[in-house]
Amino acid sequence: METVSETKPTPQPFLAVTQAFRSGADDPRRFLERCLAALDLWEPRIGAFVTLDVAGARAAADRAAERWRNGRPLSSIDGMPIGIKDVIETVDMPTQFGSPLFAGWHSHKDAASVAALRAAGAVVVGKTVTTEFAMSFPRGTRNPWDTARTPGGSSSGSAAAVAAGIVSAGLGTQVIGSVIRPASFCGIYGFKPTAHALNRTGSHDPQSQSCTGILAASLADTWQVAHEIADRAGGDPGWPGLAGPGALPAARKPRRLAMLETAGWADASEEAKAALHGAAGRMADAGVEILTRRNNAIVDAIEPDIAQSFDLSMRINDWEMRWFFRTLAERDSAQLSPHVRGRMEQSAPMTLAEHRTALLHRDAIRSAYGELASDCDACITLSATGAAPIGLQSTGNPQFAVPASLLGVPALSLPRLWAESLPLGLQVVGFADRDADAVAVARWIDELLARA
Amino acid sequence: METVSETKPTPQPFLAVTQAFRSGADDPRRFLERCLAALDLWEPRIGAFVTLDVAGARAAADRAAERWRNGRPLSSIDGMPIGIKDVIETVDMPTQFGSPLFAGWHSHKDAASVAALRAAGAVVVGKTVTTEFAMSFPRGTRNPWDTARTPGGSSSGSAAAVAAGIVSAGLGTQVIGSVIRPASFCGIYGFKPTAHALNRTGSHDPQSQSCTGILAASLADTWQVAHEIADRAGGDPGWPGLAGPGALPAARKPRRLAMLETAGWADASEEAKAALHGAAGRMADAGVEILTRRNNAIVDAIEPDIAQSFDLSMRINDWEMRWFFRTLAERDSAQLSPHVRGRMEQSAPMTLAEHRTALLHRDAIRSAYGELASDCDACITLSATGAAPIGLQSTGNPQFAVPASLLGVPALSLPRLWAESLPLGLQVVGFADRDADAVAVARWIDELLARA
Repeated sequence: METVSETKPTPQPFLAVTQAFRSGADDPRRFLERCLAALDLWEPRIGAFVTLDVAGARAAADRAAERWRNGRPLSSIDGMPIGIKDVIETVDMPTQFGSPLFAGWHSHKDAASVAALRAAGAVVVGKTVTTEFAMSFPRGTRNPWDTARTPGGSSSGSAAAVAAGIVSAGLGTQVIGSVIRPASFCGIYGFKPTAHALNRTGSHDPQSQSCTGILAASLADTWQVAHEIADRAGGDPGWPGLAGPGALPAARKPRRLAMLETAGWADASEEAKAALHGAAGRMADAGVEILTRRNNAIVDAIEPDIAQSFDLSMRINDWEMRWFFRTLAERDSAQLSPHVRGRMEQSAPMTLAEHRTALLHRDAIRSAYGELASDCDACITLSATGAAPIGLQSTGNPQFAVPASLLGVPALSLPRLWAESLPLGLQVVGFADRDADAVAVARWIDELLARA
Repeated sequence: METVSETKPTPQPFLAVTQAFRSGADDPRRFLERCLAALDLWEPRIGAFVTLDVAGARAAADRAAERWRNGRPLSSIDGMPIGIKDVIETVDMPTQFGSPLFAGWHSHKDAASVAALRAAGAVVVGKTVTTEFAMSFPRGTRNPWDTARTPGGSSSGSAAAVAAGIVSAGLGTQVIGSVIRPASFCGIYGFKPTAHALNRTGSHDPQSQSCTGILAASLADTWQVAHEIADRAGGDPGWPGLAGPGALPAARKPRRLAMLETAGWADASEEAKAALHGAAGRMADAGVEILTRRNNAIVDAIEPDIAQSFDLSMRINDWEMRWFFRTLAERDSAQLSPHVRGRMEQSAPMTLAEHRTALLHRDAIRSAYGELASDCDACITLSATGAAPIGLQSTGNPQFAVPASLLGVPALSLPRLWAESLPLGLQVVGFADRDADAVAVARWIDELLARA
């Protein structure tokens, strides 16, 4: 079977062309039609969508085109085609959680993020495939770079659809590695903001370290989508919401960057590690000081702390999903994957007292990491241990992505590395509530590595 | 029309009789049948329920009876008949939000609180009437003490059902006054815990200062229901969850209590104010020092701060519901009450920057209030401005209940005062994350005032 794509997946950045909307040389409907051509080409091969609303998208794009024509777009993403991970509610389409238990389930309302994006004029093309309940069990989406490989997960469909140019951006969620990992495997941009920075109401990922995240075709599109959500729906209720400018922050050259190994280093391919070292070398050549566990005591102290990220995150998540597993099992445990049944069993004996201890442990690691902020501008590491692995039974190793989830800090994946001739993300990890600073540094790195 | 009830509403405390379950002299099925007799008597007059599942409740009560017979109840509330406010999801019944827009809507899963209560053996009798989206527009429930009067809201049905003895406890939610006020008007116990102390996942009250609260027939039932939820589902994800003993805390005589006037004082009836003064006098006679704005500088300083509670809360809530109003209006604004349409208009021009300022303002008031903790054991005030008002068009004045909501602190309503020969609650307001301390003081006050 031929699996490696003959046609290279080509993302379609949106903000890059909106100048042409102003002049009338292009418009959102024509942009959408180019996306729908990509849909026709790619969707049969990659299966990124559970639900599509092409007619609704065309009508919305026409309305956006009219607004651009009149010089009154609702925002700079007015008319942007987007996909919504199928754990996030939409008023006009079912939300099915990647579970047969919720086949056809309909919320009849938008999640906060979706309501905000519609208010900004975004065009919802469809609901994208999620693993079962945004956990580990994959639901068949394939990687457009090589359809024998996973696109990563849990935001599988959003990542694959952006990579294939079907939408300019997709909403995802990340509690372990569900935005950064698929961004890496699919060769696109991924942004997991500070925990609570984007309003998750109506998104069915209730874990405390989960985040609404953005997968997009360009860094500018990534930031803009996040900003438009925060501007209209804020952060999680009671939190201040994503802070930063109304358009992509200017690139800022960092003075110092910490290069983190994380628990992922032991699992990373030699090619992946060499790719990161090569990128760090270019940053050093440009005058950035690179701190590592070998030359900096704070980095050395934090590495063992964040190496526990996966186990500690899973303990926290298991308690937080315990009541939910129980409700699902009461309905019909035969319709749950072995993965969910296993986690249900694991969580059954857990207690609130143990959970409180785990939360305090997480707080302590967050504080320790926070001290790095006085030593460096951001951290860099890989987004994944290598290229997307072959096979659709697993969404891949999350060890590089999980520290930012545990820490609750912003993280970006930049599609600037390669392994096995396939995309690999360089991850920029920032500090809590300083998302715009992390993006400014990421932009500088992205531009540096884009140069031949 | 005869509206004042000939039969006095009689709550049915559950824990008070479980000793007889152990001996076999009584059992949960017989307890439920007594509740169902109250249902037959009262429901046609008060309309507390939107959905009932009598057959399901009987089956669940039979299973609980079997467990008690075998000496293996799941918890001390195994078999307790409960009602669930119709903004909280239930796997076996629709959740309709008191809105025609969601007629028949079904989540097909339990909220965290409901899943926890089922795991503890509680028997869900039905879904109780809520005002539209747990806001101000009432949906017809009447007060069993006088059916010409409001039961209060927004947890209208849970309060009325508990007062009438149809269930021993009901779940409510409070973001302004929605637990404390109906508890007061219906002559039952109400408990609004510290913000985030009970897991709200699957409860559609996303505002940051909203809480899952308990309305119940006794103080012991109240505490136990809250404890069983926290024990199995914790607090909101990332929060430590309700702390305290596994059964009602022992009564504790306070050394000092602060008597708060709040913005409610100006609206309170003379009879209500006299009732509070009479109760405070009995506490003073028992040796408790009563601090007021006239004899204590900290109390005097905090009164003007908390007098702003209603306006500041509404500004915070309006922003937090802004995206939701928008989604509702896109569906069909003709199906929204004028109240929701008014709030939608009000929230439309709000900005995230203004919202952040409001949150900081709330934080400052919370800090100032926290200083009272070194001066007194708890605060007392009225739960409402007087008896339930006549008419079903309003759920009554919330000024006494809203400060604890804004402050995010625990509050209890004790059915120990009277006005117009109708119930009036005495409110005990505690300090954040010290719910058990507030309950211990409330218990002492409750027992003091129960004496002839």
